[in-house]
Amino acid sequence: MIIDKLIDKIIVMGNPSVVGLDPQLDFVPEHILKDAYEAHGYTSKACSEAILRFNMEIIDEIYDVVPAVKPQIAMYEMFGYEGIEAYIKTIQYAKSKGLFVIADAKRNDIASTGLAYAKAFLGKTKIADAQNAAFDADFLTVSPYLGQDSIEPFIDECKANDKGIFILVKTSNPGSGMLQDILSDGKPIYEIVGTYVEEWGKELRSVHGFSPIGAVVGATHKDQAKHLRAVMPHTFMLVPGYGAQGGKAEDLSVCFNEKGLGAIVNSSRGIIAAYRGKVDAKDHAKAAREAAIFMRDDIVKYINMGGV
Amino acid sequence: MIIDKLIDKIIVMGNPSVVGLDPQLDFVPEHILKDAYEAHGYTSKACSEAILRFNMEIIDEIYDVVPAVKPQIAMYEMFGYEGIEAYIKTIQYAKSKGLFVIADAKRNDIASTGLAYAKAFLGKTKIADAQNAAFDADFLTVSPYLGQDSIEPFIDECKANDKGIFILVKTSNPGSGMLQDILSDGKPIYEIVGTYVEEWGKELRSVHGFSPIGAVVGATHKDQAKHLRAVMPHTFMLVPGYGAQGGKAEDLSVCFNEKGLGAIVNSSRGIIAAYRGKVDAKDHAKAAREAAIFMRDDIVKYINMGGV
Repeated sequence: MIIDKLIDKIIVMGNPSVVGLDPQLDFVPEHILKDAYEAHGYTSKACSEAILRFNMEIIDEIYDVVPAVKPQIAMYEMFGYEGIEAYIKTIQYAKSKGLFVIADAKRNDIASTGLAYAKAFLGKTKIADAQNAAFDADFLTVSPYLGQDSIEPFIDECKANDKGIFILVKTSNPGSGMLQDILSDGKPIYEIVGTYVEEWGKELRSVHGFSPIGAVVGATHKDQAKHLRAVMPHTFMLVPGYGAQGGKAEDLSVCFNEKGLGAIVNSSRGIIAAYRGKVDAKDHAKAAREAAIFMRDDIVKYINMGGV
Repeated sequence: MIIDKLIDKIIVMGNPSVVGLDPQLDFVPEHILKDAYEAHGYTSKACSEAILRFNMEIIDEIYDVVPAVKPQIAMYEMFGYEGIEAYIKTIQYAKSKGLFVIADAKRNDIASTGLAYAKAFLGKTKIADAQNAAFDADFLTVSPYLGQDSIEPFIDECKANDKGIFILVKTSNPGSGMLQDILSDGKPIYEIVGTYVEEWGKELRSVHGFSPIGAVVGATHKDQAKHLRAVMPHTFMLVPGYGAQGGKAEDLSVCFNEKGLGAIVNSSRGIIAAYRGKVDAKDHAKAAREAAIFMRDDIVKYINMGGV
């Protein structure tokens, strides 16, 4: 199962982290933008090509350091269908380099529309007698507000195509508590959702004890993350919020179990924009590599990876 | 403000309904698919073109009957970036015919990524000194799980560009209660979210008394919808679930106020697939028109539109 393959790669690389490819145009070096504008004018096409090149240069420098990338689709949707083409090509390029790809799209809907999202990102679209994988990511982030029947199509596609999802449980933003921390009979909503996630993955647990039905748990809420690790012992966590958002390595160690497993930590701008104000923009990808190595070393200091 | 313009059009047309353009490939008539496959093979491009033509033929028949359309983006994402191109062209064509467009994408994210979604669907993307509107919808559906700071960028773009949003409050699916009906101090989550939505729109109320910060309230939950109408008296409702999902016109009348205003009711497959098993596929758009007229007459029977 894909979750075991991801965990195996995390163990081999000694690196439970993922680089978020959220290329705000401000992050793309001037010389890359200049080339693209010269070729295509001030257009969405130019920006999309610039973003793709930026991503590819970063991927070339990090694929042997990190096990996965997490492209966030909003930064591509801003550029319309051409942005989505760059998103799909980014996924393809990352996979060609052996990286796992977590599509961060926070999708969800009901019935046939939920199934359409699931097939778009994790499955195949039937076209007459042919089939086409539109995005072909390995994992997808999914929002839970619509309830169990909106999650089922995603779980079905995970089973059918050996893919995984990360369901939003406790997010890293300061305002996450508005809904997620509301108490019902003494239990916060995030715990109730987390309990469902643990249950949904029950039949899919694999070699390392985790299921491909994972959870998003923000690194910025240490106590809640610790509580969720106990509530969801077999649920693999995608942990955003490290670095630029304020999450510290020593705090997010609570997301890992006694073997140093159970989570993958994301950093986006802390890696892909690491060069800014520090090194020449031509060396942006090397700066990303250094930042990725720093993140790896920072995180593994606090966890017992390889332990028993 | 756009919400007043939409309500004005609803009043003039005597029709508080919206046609959901969720073109499952099964709904697209054989002759349209055949032409597209002949031109482009069994490809995403062919399907995207077929969907666009299907939509345009429907729009040509309904634009003088209904005030708005609601294209659901998952059905397009299944076909990758070419599907998204068809989605954008559908929006453009609908707007060229004077229809309001509710982009049903249920987007949400935090900080800069939330802002990127907001700009993609409701605002403009800055490209050097130029600006480009990627989707340029009038309204967007938005998911609330991430909390207030994830909603703010959407509200900001509504203000900046005279757009609107519909935040998921109580959805129409059978499993919506899993999270939305959880009680906290005797209040269900959907009521708590609804109270926030009413508050967020407070400063934006316009001539008809409603704000452009609306709510999604499923037609399949009559008692809850009635309760929400009282909790959110100034919140305009997008009401899915009529028709194929089981929502009945007499039940959803509770979403309207004493003037027959306050909601717009969606039907998707009940309109766009109305032809199936009934008339020749060549007449699919005329069947959609008839179904749209039936829906209009069915709904207005139970509400006091034009009343005082």
